[in-house]
Amino acid sequence: MKKLVLAYSGGLDTSYCAKYLSKDQGFEVHAVSVNTGGFSDEEIATINSKALELGATTYTSINAVKTFYEKVVKYLIFGNVLKNNTYPLSVSAERIVQAIEIVNYAKKIGAKYIAHGSTGAGNDQVRFDMIFQIIAPEIEIITPIRDNKLSREYEIEYLQKNGVDYPWNKAKYSINKGLWGTSVGGEETLTSNLPLPDSAYPSQLQEKNPSEVTLTFEKGELVAIDGKKDHPVANIEKLEAMASKYAIGRDIHVGDTIIGIKGRVGFEAAAALIIIKAHHLLEKHTLSKWQQYQKEQQGNFYGMLLHEGNYLDEVMRNIEAFLTDTQKNVSGDVFVSLYPFQFRLNGISSEHDLMNASFGSYGEMHKGWTADEAKGFIKIISNAGKIYNHVNHNND
Amino acid sequence: MKKLVLAYSGGLDTSYCAKYLSKDQGFEVHAVSVNTGGFSDEEIATINSKALELGATTYTSINAVKTFYEKVVKYLIFGNVLKNNTYPLSVSAERIVQAIEIVNYAKKIGAKYIAHGSTGAGNDQVRFDMIFQIIAPEIEIITPIRDNKLSREYEIEYLQKNGVDYPWNKAKYSINKGLWGTSVGGEETLTSNLPLPDSAYPSQLQEKNPSEVTLTFEKGELVAIDGKKDHPVANIEKLEAMASKYAIGRDIHVGDTIIGIKGRVGFEAAAALIIIKAHHLLEKHTLSKWQQYQKEQQGNFYGMLLHEGNYLDEVMRNIEAFLTDTQKNVSGDVFVSLYPFQFRLNGISSEHDLMNASFGSYGEMHKGWTADEAKGFIKIISNAGKIYNHVNHNND
Amino acid sequence: MKKLVLAYSGGLDTSYCAKYLSKDQGFEVHAVSVNTGGFSDEEIATINSKALELGATTYTSINAVKTFYEKVVKYLIFGNVLKNNTYPLSVSAERIVQAIEIVNYAKKIGAKYIAHGSTGAGNDQVRFDMIFQIIAPEIEIITPIRDNKLSREYEIEYLQKNGVDYPWNKAKYSINKGLWGTSVGGEETLTSNLPLPDSAYPSQLQEKNPSEVTLTFEKGELVAIDGKKDHPVANIEKLEAMASKYAIGRDIHVGDTIIGIKGRVGFEAAAALIIIKAHHLLEKHTLSKWQQYQKEQQGNFYGMLLHEGNYLDEVMRNIEAFLTDTQKNVSGDVFVSLYPFQFRLNGISSEHDLMNASFGSYGEMHKGWTADEAKGFIKIISNAGKIYNHVNHNND
Amino acid sequence: MKKLVLAYSGGLDTSYCAKYLSKDQGFEVHAVSVNTGGFSDEEIATINSKALELGATTYTSINAVKTFYEKVVKYLIFGNVLKNNTYPLSVSAERIVQAIEIVNYAKKIGAKYIAHGSTGAGNDQVRFDMIFQIIAPEIEIITPIRDNKLSREYEIEYLQKNGVDYPWNKAKYSINKGLWGTSVGGEETLTSNLPLPDSAYPSQLQEKNPSEVTLTFEKGELVAIDGKKDHPVANIEKLEAMASKYAIGRDIHVGDTIIGIKGRVGFEAAAALIIIKAHHLLEKHTLSKWQQYQKEQQGNFYGMLLHEGNYLDEVMRNIEAFLTDTQKNVSGDVFVSLYPFQFRLNGISSEHDLMNASFGSYGEMHKGWTADEAKGFIKIISNAGKIYNHVNHNND
Repeated sequence: MKKLVLAYSGGLDTSYCAKYLSKDQGFEVHAVSVNTGGFSDEEIATINSKALELGATTYTSINAVKTFYEKVVKYLIFGNVLKNNTYPLSVSAERIVQAIEIVNYAKKIGAKYIAHGSTGAGNDQVRFDMIFQIIAPEIEIITPIRDNKLSREYEIEYLQKNGVDYPWNKAKYSINKGLWGTSVGGEETLTSNLPLPDSAYPSQLQEKNPSEVTLTFEKGELVAIDGKKDHPVANIEKLEAMASKYAIGRDIHVGDTIIGIKGRVGFEAAAALIIIKAHHLLEKHTLSKWQQYQKEQQGNFYGMLLHEGNYLDEVMRNIEAFLTDTQKNVSGDVFVSLYPFQFRLNGISSEHDLMNASFGSYGEMHKGWTADEAKGFIKIISNAGKIYNHVNHNND
Repeated sequence: MKKLVLAYSGGLDTSYCAKYLSKDQGFEVHAVSVNTGGFSDEEIATINSKALELGATTYTSINAVKTFYEKVVKYLIFGNVLKNNTYPLSVSAERIVQAIEIVNYAKKIGAKYIAHGSTGAGNDQVRFDMIFQIIAPEIEIITPIRDNKLSREYEIEYLQKNGVDYPWNKAKYSINKGLWGTSVGGEETLTSNLPLPDSAYPSQLQEKNPSEVTLTFEKGELVAIDGKKDHPVANIEKLEAMASKYAIGRDIHVGDTIIGIKGRVGFEAAAALIIIKAHHLLEKHTLSKWQQYQKEQQGNFYGMLLHEGNYLDEVMRNIEAFLTDTQKNVSGDVFVSLYPFQFRLNGISSEHDLMNASFGSYGEMHKGWTADEAKGFIKIISNAGKIYNHVNHNND
Repeated sequence: MKKLVLAYSGGLDTSYCAKYLSKDQGFEVHAVSVNTGGFSDEEIATINSKALELGATTYTSINAVKTFYEKVVKYLIFGNVLKNNTYPLSVSAERIVQAIEIVNYAKKIGAKYIAHGSTGAGNDQVRFDMIFQIIAPEIEIITPIRDNKLSREYEIEYLQKNGVDYPWNKAKYSINKGLWGTSVGGEETLTSNLPLPDSAYPSQLQEKNPSEVTLTFEKGELVAIDGKKDHPVANIEKLEAMASKYAIGRDIHVGDTIIGIKGRVGFEAAAALIIIKAHHLLEKHTLSKWQQYQKEQQGNFYGMLLHEGNYLDEVMRNIEAFLTDTQKNVSGDVFVSLYPFQFRLNGISSEHDLMNASFGSYGEMHKGWTADEAKGFIKIISNAGKIYNHVNHNND
Repeated sequence: MKKLVLAYSGGLDTSYCAKYLSKDQGFEVHAVSVNTGGFSDEEIATINSKALELGATTYTSINAVKTFYEKVVKYLIFGNVLKNNTYPLSVSAERIVQAIEIVNYAKKIGAKYIAHGSTGAGNDQVRFDMIFQIIAPEIEIITPIRDNKLSREYEIEYLQKNGVDYPWNKAKYSINKGLWGTSVGGEETLTSNLPLPDSAYPSQLQEKNPSEVTLTFEKGELVAIDGKKDHPVANIEKLEAMASKYAIGRDIHVGDTIIGIKGRVGFEAAAALIIIKAHHLLEKHTLSKWQQYQKEQQGNFYGMLLHEGNYLDEVMRNIEAFLTDTQKNVSGDVFVSLYPFQFRLNGISSEHDLMNASFGSYGEMHKGWTADEAKGFIKIISNAGKIYNHVNHNND
């Protein structure tokens, strides 16, 4: 029988696929979901039983949270990556790791087909298919939803006819949760002018009293919160739990999709935003001017290619080598205050802090050089401009 | 007599210079202050009388607010320039225009000397001297404070001996106000770990009820607020008045000074931050992906050179030509909500909005292309990766 | 009848199209060729009569040499664009202008169809189709060769059956000639290791005695050769005639095609290479360091997007504005020697030359500053490194 | 006695320093020369005896050719670095390594002073002093030539008075030889318009018959010539010996000095130019488009900072990590032909060659995708442009 791996989420589209591919198309369906931080154990158990009920031969939940961190999130922090200066790339980054896990699973069990539930309109189909085709060009990709432009109504009716009668209520907002943030789409995000209502965001304000938190970084990684050491993934989750009570990290991303149209999506990413901003502040104290300049360019570029599904381009590995090398001294504490809907960075403490009081204080009379040395410096850095002006504007 | 133009602010350092240069050094001192948005008429009148009392032959206040906007602020908006992703370059940008106005004034009145009160430790001496030397290499620069490393105590005593007895109370925080923001320095900003106390910021929270404001841009310039057209400078001032009641726009900038040390300075720049973020959002809707990519790189670079006093480098004119050209379609309304300590961008409306519902909707089934076309697209953008993997990892 | 514009070159593929579309498909075929520098009047006359014999209702030759220069070549010179540091983008640049001319012609005569002879394997189909679709999405694109994967043999037989019996000898090398260079493809360019034989190049060595030529640029444009003023297009043609006698400007370009595979193509572009290198040298003398730095980045990017058919992306207009602005002072003479297979740049003369002997000589004792000023300069530019080392390596 | 390390070259300036510092200034002079490829054993022996005659307590020749290769040259090859697209940075790169060796030697022997013979007009003083100050801020730098603006005549007379009577003929051209090329300065290079005469270059044409050479790279390093494996340094020297017989690699570099003036210098660097161009060609076959794009930007930036003496900025280590990572597959043979005054790259052979005939041939009908897939691809990459045009030019 034709072995097929189905990327299964438990939603309507992939449930349709599970039934349709196993019953009508005669595939041996192996349902897989890849957890990059969005699923609880309970949800996984539900997805499991659903998959089997729908005709899947097996169901496997792959826990890829640490892989997601090691392969992607770590570099998004190193590079302070915020797409268009706003969006921590929550969802786009997850898709990459999910695709890699799925194709590896398919190769492991010897499946010749991979199916997913993406439509033909968005970015996810590109991210999935690119990685499947590059890593396993011999595997055929099956996409019933995309190919047949099926409507929700059709899918529900089909499932009912086949004896599956779950309550497929369409949520008002489509929510996509993961380690690095939650995306929120709804009717407002299809407009250019309307914000999402507060209620659309997954976390609601529960804590009004400000609090303080200390983030400890070691070579760019978040190794401790308030002095308690733990794995960076655990620290991200802990910070998310603390900060989401303040409803921190909401915004709307407007960006260019891979297929050339503009898209708008809400997101909530308290931990991601706090960590990136805190990490960036620590870098301002510990990196040279040119390190920061090059990191900004490389980080933006890395984010662009990642967003567009180009994760496997070898240049990404090269930039990761660059970014990793920049983190040698990015170690220290960052002091953060949490407030309703916002946070503030209070300062940092690091043994690599280049703002070194013993050497000289900004704005105060400086002991490191004399007035004459400063004047010599300024005179010579003015040379090029002086000549330019002399040559080109001497009759002004 | 030796004609000298003194950049005069009314503060202790430049007051010392006024007296010392006119009385002890025998200069004919022409005091000048250049208003880039920080001085009220009352303050100017006070500065005027002080200058004359201290021995200046003349005092002139140059209103350069519009020049500041036309020469610098406009491009900082076009380029969404936030130094190190944080600081709108409030003070650094002003110094440039002040220097240009002063040197032009000196040339106009035929002065052979320009004096200013900068120390040898900071950025301002560089910004001033570079511009003076490039535009008027024949003019000699006189800097008594820098040359003699004078202390406050010495200066006060000197002025008292010479019959000048103002109350030179050292403010706890040194405040520098201008059109594009206010900088705040104090003992905390000399550390790496302490934030400024709320009270150090010039604006205090006066308004707790949220409100909404609509910013209208025309080719990248802020031409109206809530539908009322006015000069962009007036609009900036109006927005600042509205938003500073919410204590919006406070942060701390940590950056690399021109002389190679790290510096930390607080700032409050409600209007600047809101305008840049609103303008940037409008660009996300109206510019192509590559326009945004190149603008980000050019804008960052422009900010770096401006910050370092390289405003007169011809590349700055070239980038201004680039930035201006990018703004052709950056027209429309941006809807902003003001809250205590923060603001939110709700959305935009523009006839140049590329997120065009009639063409296709992100995330919904798309009418612009078929599933097969999407698959052909993905297949071909995967080519390079497929070949790379085939050639380099075929035995994996 | 269905009006169709056929991009007609006189070659086998487009001759097949002319016959097939007019006779079998019932189109009213309006054949067009766009001359971007490759066709002589005689060749055009031949193409004309061929087109009509094959069933075209009309034939039009559009002279787009000056348009090509104004829209593209000028900026390739301003930006010193050599793709992968080698290739002046001869052919890729022409296709853009040809496509624009064809689609404008189709709109003018009210044609609802455009046909071209590209296959499905190369870059040209992308360059043509993108521009057609963007400028005139309502026009349908017809590509018989691509759609039906026709072989040469099939096409020749088809034409013979239809009474057309030209001698369709397959040239050993496919040659594509234009104002900005000639591309040469052959069996060697399908390998990675073989060079083209000398005989494959269109120009053969005819002149062994070196000669000298002076190129005069005015704001970046080549306005005179050896002191004789003429239109830049005429000057490019004149220089090509002079330099091709020396067989200058041969090389092989290896690059990434738009469709993701590597391609290799020989070219000969004597005028293009001499002009770009001469122009670049003039810029080294007349532009600031940062102008050159930014120009290099922008120029490379411009070349990349042009090569990939993205000419209509608005960022290209923005970069053109930037490049044009950089050329204000790029005026003067460049002295070049021509030798067999190579040329040398001897030097330049320009009133905007920043290497100004009156100001100071490189390597000789300088009058512009003192030893102490130089030492002050060096001390302060060492600050950042000194602090970095102090903080991070103080126990080394 | 005051221990001083003198960077000693055997030339007039440093000979003056040796005598003056040991005799008049009472230093214990330890002369050092750092060989980065320019000195023969014979020359070193001469320098040795001279140094001791002039009063040096010791003389040490440090062989730093391999260090030079490992610390700098390797990365210049990885990055294809040609300053301003012309100059392999021969001399600027050497100075860095010489400075590091000298300061390390000074620390080793416990010297409190370092002296060098640079003037106050050029780049070398900056490169030397920066590195000395950053690595060993406690060591004082002594520069008699710079400080006293001494003339040749004065120095010769001083030496004669002190019993030193070498024939200090001023060579018509100042020559600086090293592993990575030889610089040539003379009266012509002080002008903008005159080329150096052929005779000024160190290598003269000795071989008129073309020959072929195969360069083998392994992870970006030149590991073999014509199949013979050797250390990259030996291979560079061997290739230089072969190619300099053809007088290959001459050109004139026009660039911006660190102190803001334009400089012009001739150079001959046969091996450097051939290796960089050959390496670059191999990369065009083995790297992805985006790897090449990022490498070009990073390589240019690396060259700029190196040229300006910023070698110790930590960003240089980060870029080196990036460049090293890009070289994983840059292995294979490059076939080069040598001709009088020029060379040609014939092609490459590599198991990592991405121009893979088995996958598809450029320009020929392709088996990897169908016409419909190509059309789908083009349609979707046209989306953004189509929307832009629709929104912004729909009334055109």
